[in-house]
Amino acid sequence: MDAKTLTPVVSTKISPQGGLDVLSRGEVSRLRDASAGGLHELLRRCALAVLTTGSESDDPRAALERYPTFDIEVHQQDRGIKLELTDAPATAFVDGRLIRGVAELLVSVVRDIVYVSSEIEDAAAFDLNSSEGITNAVFEILRNARVLRAGQEPNLVVCWGGHSIKRHEYEYTKLVGYQLGLRGLDICTGCGPGAMKGPMKGATIAHAKQRLFESRYIGITEPGIIAAESPNPIVNNLVIMPDIEKRLEAFVRAGHGIIVFPGGVGTAEEILYLLGILLHPKNADLPFPFVLTGPKESAAYFEQIDHFLRLALGDEVAKRYKIIVDDPVSVAKAMVDGVELVRRHRLDSKDAFFFNWAVEIPFAFQQPFVPNHENMAALHLRRDVPVHELAADLRRAFSGIVAGNVKEEGMRAIEQFGPFKIDGEPEIMRALDALLQAFVAQGRMKMSGEYKPCYRVVAGADLPVAAPAA
Amino acid sequence: MDAKTLTPVVSTKISPQGGLDVLSRGEVSRLRDASAGGLHELLRRCALAVLTTGSESDDPRAALERYPTFDIEVHQQDRGIKLELTDAPATAFVDGRLIRGVAELLVSVVRDIVYVSSEIEDAAAFDLNSSEGITNAVFEILRNARVLRAGQEPNLVVCWGGHSIKRHEYEYTKLVGYQLGLRGLDICTGCGPGAMKGPMKGATIAHAKQRLFESRYIGITEPGIIAAESPNPIVNNLVIMPDIEKRLEAFVRAGHGIIVFPGGVGTAEEILYLLGILLHPKNADLPFPFVLTGPKESAAYFEQIDHFLRLALGDEVAKRYKIIVDDPVSVAKAMVDGVELVRRHRLDSKDAFFFNWAVEIPFAFQQPFVPNHENMAALHLRRDVPVHELAADLRRAFSGIVAGNVKEEGMRAIEQFGPFKIDGEPEIMRALDALLQAFVAQGRMKMSGEYKPCYRVVAGADLPVAAPAA
Amino acid sequence: MDAKTLTPVVSTKISPQGGLDVLSRGEVSRLRDASAGGLHELLRRCALAVLTTGSESDDPRAALERYPTFDIEVHQQDRGIKLELTDAPATAFVDGRLIRGVAELLVSVVRDIVYVSSEIEDAAAFDLNSSEGITNAVFEILRNARVLRAGQEPNLVVCWGGHSIKRHEYEYTKLVGYQLGLRGLDICTGCGPGAMKGPMKGATIAHAKQRLFESRYIGITEPGIIAAESPNPIVNNLVIMPDIEKRLEAFVRAGHGIIVFPGGVGTAEEILYLLGILLHPKNADLPFPFVLTGPKESAAYFEQIDHFLRLALGDEVAKRYKIIVDDPVSVAKAMVDGVELVRRHRLDSKDAFFFNWAVEIPFAFQQPFVPNHENMAALHLRRDVPVHELAADLRRAFSGIVAGNVKEEGMRAIEQFGPFKIDGEPEIMRALDALLQAFVAQGRMKMSGEYKPCYRVVAGADLPVAAPAA
Amino acid sequence: MDAKTLTPVVSTKISPQGGLDVLSRGEVSRLRDASAGGLHELLRRCALAVLTTGSESDDPRAALERYPTFDIEVHQQDRGIKLELTDAPATAFVDGRLIRGVAELLVSVVRDIVYVSSEIEDAAAFDLNSSEGITNAVFEILRNARVLRAGQEPNLVVCWGGHSIKRHEYEYTKLVGYQLGLRGLDICTGCGPGAMKGPMKGATIAHAKQRLFESRYIGITEPGIIAAESPNPIVNNLVIMPDIEKRLEAFVRAGHGIIVFPGGVGTAEEILYLLGILLHPKNADLPFPFVLTGPKESAAYFEQIDHFLRLALGDEVAKRYKIIVDDPVSVAKAMVDGVELVRRHRLDSKDAFFFNWAVEIPFAFQQPFVPNHENMAALHLRRDVPVHELAADLRRAFSGIVAGNVKEEGMRAIEQFGPFKIDGEPEIMRALDALLQAFVAQGRMKMSGEYKPCYRVVAGADLPVAAPAA
Repeated sequence: MDAKTLTPVVSTKISPQGGLDVLSRGEVSRLRDASAGGLHELLRRCALAVLTTGSESDDPRAALERYPTFDIEVHQQDRGIKLELTDAPATAFVDGRLIRGVAELLVSVVRDIVYVSSEIEDAAAFDLNSSEGITNAVFEILRNARVLRAGQEPNLVVCWGGHSIKRHEYEYTKLVGYQLGLRGLDICTGCGPGAMKGPMKGATIAHAKQRLFESRYIGITEPGIIAAESPNPIVNNLVIMPDIEKRLEAFVRAGHGIIVFPGGVGTAEEILYLLGILLHPKNADLPFPFVLTGPKESAAYFEQIDHFLRLALGDEVAKRYKIIVDDPVSVAKAMVDGVELVRRHRLDSKDAFFFNWAVEIPFAFQQPFVPNHENMAALHLRRDVPVHELAADLRRAFSGIVAGNVKEEGMRAIEQFGPFKIDGEPEIMRALDALLQAFVAQGRMKMSGEYKPCYRVVAGADLPVAAPAA
Repeated sequence: MDAKTLTPVVSTKISPQGGLDVLSRGEVSRLRDASAGGLHELLRRCALAVLTTGSESDDPRAALERYPTFDIEVHQQDRGIKLELTDAPATAFVDGRLIRGVAELLVSVVRDIVYVSSEIEDAAAFDLNSSEGITNAVFEILRNARVLRAGQEPNLVVCWGGHSIKRHEYEYTKLVGYQLGLRGLDICTGCGPGAMKGPMKGATIAHAKQRLFESRYIGITEPGIIAAESPNPIVNNLVIMPDIEKRLEAFVRAGHGIIVFPGGVGTAEEILYLLGILLHPKNADLPFPFVLTGPKESAAYFEQIDHFLRLALGDEVAKRYKIIVDDPVSVAKAMVDGVELVRRHRLDSKDAFFFNWAVEIPFAFQQPFVPNHENMAALHLRRDVPVHELAADLRRAFSGIVAGNVKEEGMRAIEQFGPFKIDGEPEIMRALDALLQAFVAQGRMKMSGEYKPCYRVVAGADLPVAAPAA
Repeated sequence: MDAKTLTPVVSTKISPQGGLDVLSRGEVSRLRDASAGGLHELLRRCALAVLTTGSESDDPRAALERYPTFDIEVHQQDRGIKLELTDAPATAFVDGRLIRGVAELLVSVVRDIVYVSSEIEDAAAFDLNSSEGITNAVFEILRNARVLRAGQEPNLVVCWGGHSIKRHEYEYTKLVGYQLGLRGLDICTGCGPGAMKGPMKGATIAHAKQRLFESRYIGITEPGIIAAESPNPIVNNLVIMPDIEKRLEAFVRAGHGIIVFPGGVGTAEEILYLLGILLHPKNADLPFPFVLTGPKESAAYFEQIDHFLRLALGDEVAKRYKIIVDDPVSVAKAMVDGVELVRRHRLDSKDAFFFNWAVEIPFAFQQPFVPNHENMAALHLRRDVPVHELAADLRRAFSGIVAGNVKEEGMRAIEQFGPFKIDGEPEIMRALDALLQAFVAQGRMKMSGEYKPCYRVVAGADLPVAAPAA
Repeated sequence: MDAKTLTPVVSTKISPQGGLDVLSRGEVSRLRDASAGGLHELLRRCALAVLTTGSESDDPRAALERYPTFDIEVHQQDRGIKLELTDAPATAFVDGRLIRGVAELLVSVVRDIVYVSSEIEDAAAFDLNSSEGITNAVFEILRNARVLRAGQEPNLVVCWGGHSIKRHEYEYTKLVGYQLGLRGLDICTGCGPGAMKGPMKGATIAHAKQRLFESRYIGITEPGIIAAESPNPIVNNLVIMPDIEKRLEAFVRAGHGIIVFPGGVGTAEEILYLLGILLHPKNADLPFPFVLTGPKESAAYFEQIDHFLRLALGDEVAKRYKIIVDDPVSVAKAMVDGVELVRRHRLDSKDAFFFNWAVEIPFAFQQPFVPNHENMAALHLRRDVPVHELAADLRRAFSGIVAGNVKEEGMRAIEQFGPFKIDGEPEIMRALDALLQAFVAQGRMKMSGEYKPCYRVVAGADLPVAAPAA
């Protein structure tokens, strides 16, 4: 009994619609070559993720096992390109025809995985070693994906939060999305499940009730994420950024405000990323609505985060965000008000509505942080530097600690070389410990047993310190 | 502490949009008079039902208690009409503005309750005492509600079934709606909860996936039903027919096929209504896809109905319907195929796509059945008449028995005058008993205790009979 | 050699689009009967006028001779109606298919000639013996023709003027239409040639330049006129009112301002009709932009009219109109300003934008004037009555004098019974003479030889008078 | 008295719409720099041509004198660009606002003059020294101008012909345009007056009659031409190609057929250009409708051309074109049929509808011909080479002879160095003489006095020859 018996598949050829439909011969041929070359496996994985969107299982890795013979090829013909699918999941088809929305997502995958690679990265038209060059690349990819629209009033709310949250938290994200949608706001998320799906689902119902037919459900992802999480079926504008940092920048530059729902450490990292930017002196006057919200059961979660942020970065930091517990209507109203401030500010400064050119994103934020012993030792978690620098280092510390605790590579490094040595103030480090332990207690980290710090504070001016002993 | 404290309300004036916007002065003034006169209480109840659409509770009677001071008035001004709402449920508003979809449903209510009354019923333009006149009125009301569209390909699937079905049955209706929607079919239901909401919800997701933006979610109701069940929020085309018989006729003439989900006795009545029509000799060559379907747990339900229908009406009857258990894809494919036959038949016979003029609906089916002792005694439940006549009388018997068992008026009549006397074949009556008992056993009737027939078969040629003793 | 050789013809069947497409069986059958009965010849003539639109010759009577075998029949089929054309002008077809715009005009003809007759005039739903009833009928016909649109800002400029004007006058009407079109105004005319075609042509180019794609070119005509003058090809919304008075009322109620170009006596009559209404005390506060305009060669024409109006009705009358010579931009600006006043007034008084309910049109203006000796004798052309009454009688006198001078029936009556006797002030009558003689001199009347008054002023208080001797 | 008194002007700032609205900062800054630098004068001249579109005078050089202080600047602001106009012709404005269609043409000018220069020519992304590179540039410019549309059926007819033709010839081009428009064909021309305006005007009326609202009136021009001839006001899609050769290639690759109306030598050159391509062996099987047409007075003109082409290139050449005299309907039908063949061929060969990748345009055709003595001497006008090569050289000879006869530079060269020496067969040269003399006689060349050849046939194998003596 072969795989096909278990999981029905379809093989077919598809002409792309809604993109990649007016290409030059050169573009077509580069596209074909790239898709057959080094990018082929990535393209295959991402295409499969899209083709299993909305399926019962959200795990595309399982999909790879279920559809081992699946393949996608880009063919050239004078007229343009054709996508050949072999042994594709039958669930993406209706009576032999690919579901139109899935076809559009598939075009997005080819466009962003292959086209972006061949036209942007290889073309050397962009200097990816400068801050401005990276921002230009982000702009170009978003424009190419038709995310940037002239004449569109600011109304794009980015929703961040965990992908594997609890049921009541998920329900809450739907309620918030519903209230946002009733007020005509569009939704942008990381386009996976959980807090990335709920707001879109709620907004869909609300948009239908308000008879808004051109709403945008934008998913901004990157190859690693999409290959691990199928985009949810509501997304009607999918963009695959080349890496996590460009993805984060895309959220900040395309969105007009951000809501953070409960999540795990990843969510905490995102909060610190955003604060690192908003606390930058050049962004001091830039309005940007930023709301942390969850159901009443999540109140403690946000209290802990708030406590940690105030302790580490000072009470001033709290001016940059608003915590709203169990009140979707207030969240939506806060976003409406905040987006209106953004709108006026853009008009005053003659900045575009569709892309936030004005926000300063330092080069350091645009580059990945590799959490090894060397980089961790270089962190400076002390309050003797500007808050935005401290926020940036805190984000990195967070990233490293998590790696040391739960990621395979990080755990091996710890075993081999001992705990990371960090130059940090004990008070900050203790607060960090407390926060992480709370996450463990709340089941927000995939960790079992007692929480055990994987780092050690090195001797500094303020020694001796009493902690953080294991 | 008054009601307002408990349930937030809003008072406001609304200009109707999407209907009632180009009225003559005479129409406006008749509208105002009628809405202030005898129709006012009906208008108020229906308006409240619409204003509480999508609220947690689906029971508009509760709404009447929660919003005792709610009122609606139609005001005349040269420009047209304005609707004044007093103490309306705040849930229908967003930041003080009525949700647009709710506003449209409200216009439908005023249009059909008041306008239809003043322009159609009183205008004497329609002879409601003839079959043709009734059909014309049905046509006129549907046209006025913009349900009938020239140039629209046949794709309207009517879904019938219970409003208080079990969870797994409800989930199944969503799956069927999803498969219908993936195939571009639009949905028409009685527009309440349960089997009337599920298919629309499933189709909404599917239409979004297929990027179909002009889909129709038609709700056809009547004053008694809407006042008891808020229309579900997906409906974007609401029509309130004057009575149940015109509502049933509207389903048959506007729809291109019908799916019946599990339900209670009301659903069984609807099945018999439709069979009574389809079995009429004049409709013998008329294609009309008719599918009975439910999840695997409902298999027994449909077996019992099938058994009863074959026994009473002969095996031939089964050619007119198809029972599909636990297979949404097959249901959707059967409808696609059936609707295609309808389309070809209409083309061949040069009949309209938007209204089934050709189907014969006898006058008896267009008039209400009053289930009193006299009418029940006049029934003839014997196989010595044409099957469509027997089907019609079976539907009436059904209606009467249910009234005698569970409806207040009917139960009082039984108490006072004893059981209904029915001229029926024992075999048919026994089958009927069995069917009703099964309904009770399955919890499909709001009855407690042992099922006790409220009728008695009178002496006929085939006496003595052994049953149905009280 | 038969007619077909000379003038290519096409016979075909057509399904109406854009109207008459969702009819009840009763409507279809009444339509078929009426079109085959007494209305058939009228329908045939009007249909032929539409089918020869844009042809070199503008004279549909010539068309009747060129297409003697042309016929149109309305067929019933379950699905609706079909129009059967026999020996129709081939110029209306492209490769065997009727030009779509012509098909739409044809549907308008059937709708207004036959449908209006059967549904409005016969249905007794309208009391055509009361002022209000007539206004309701005008409303109903315009609504049925989809001329009345909710949500459309006021922008409809009515253009009146002669149909057989001189070349430079025609060119001027195009320039005015161009300037109106540049400012987003839509055009409504009597839909024949000359001053009724020029403004639409100019506006078409301007609308294209301003990228306005939903502009309205409304033609309001009546059976006698359309049968004598093909509608010009730009008209995209044609309405055939039952008679001249309802046509005039339709202009006044649907338009938001009126421009009068040079013309003959018919145009002068229209000016008096409009002044008779605007001078009515009840309309004193009603804004209504009314501009008389022409090229510089027409300056004298408007001076004479102005002089006559001031003499007869007092200088106050001139407040109601504005004469602009040779300045299309000023004309367009005056209309923009005037329409804005209309807009504000409608908002203030909560009147509809699409129909001027508020303007008082006395019953006398809604009824035809038959110019016989009796009616002429009943006129009272003296300044001892309110100006609006005098204006009304002047319009009638005008109508009668023209009939006596140039219309066959009127001339016969004069030959038989002698000149009309009119009760008029000599000064007014002299001014009238002067005006008519100027028209003759300018070639605006189809009259040859010396102008000879066909009336005599009867003895009154101010006798003896020195004129107007035959 | 200054210029402003004579010619009213307006100064204002404009935000571009319909293009250039989603630019990166880099693009904006390159645009600003280029427009302020070497391209400024060209930009200014072309912008003025667009701003005087539709004005009484068609000569933009006169415009430069009338608006000496006119200027245009491109400003950068974060939000994008703004165009600042100083002392712009008031005729392009309505009540202070730029006419929207003119604004769109202005955006096209900036886009193609400046943006194309900075993004395509300087970017070195295109190899303009290879045939393929040039074709790619043509593609890119057309795509950037949104001329190439996926999903559009083939329907684009290119119309060539003189810009200063006679009245009856102009009227004929309108009739042809009208018949093309009735059949749903769109028009592409060089976008000046005469034969470039008539077809668009006729098609506009026809499209309106057929209720086609999305028609394309594409003008393809180049800087030298647009600066000498304002685009006509109907054009709704203007592209300015960098030079004449790319403009010709754009016509051939974007159009689905070509009609040539009477014109001067420029038109004759275009005919030879197209034949040079169509006669290329690689294009032998490529369908491409090519019709020469004019009113009956032009019959001789086409006979002479036909005679010359058959003599020089052989009778086979006539298979590639069709001469239709005085029959607009036949012309339109020929194009409909021909375009249908193109459509089928593209489907069969899976080529794009929107760009004719398959047609072979040799590198020589893509490069300008400089008509000096050296290049002229290199021509080989003999029938011992393939016809497509001879056609190409004939086109060049034509170009040179015209330059020697009427263009300032050419005439000076002749004066200085004597007649061009050409290696040509006497028979061909005599036919060429005869053709040119006929053009002179018909007033198609701006030449006075006797026609005097500016060339001499050099001694070759076939000497002695009897001509061409002066």
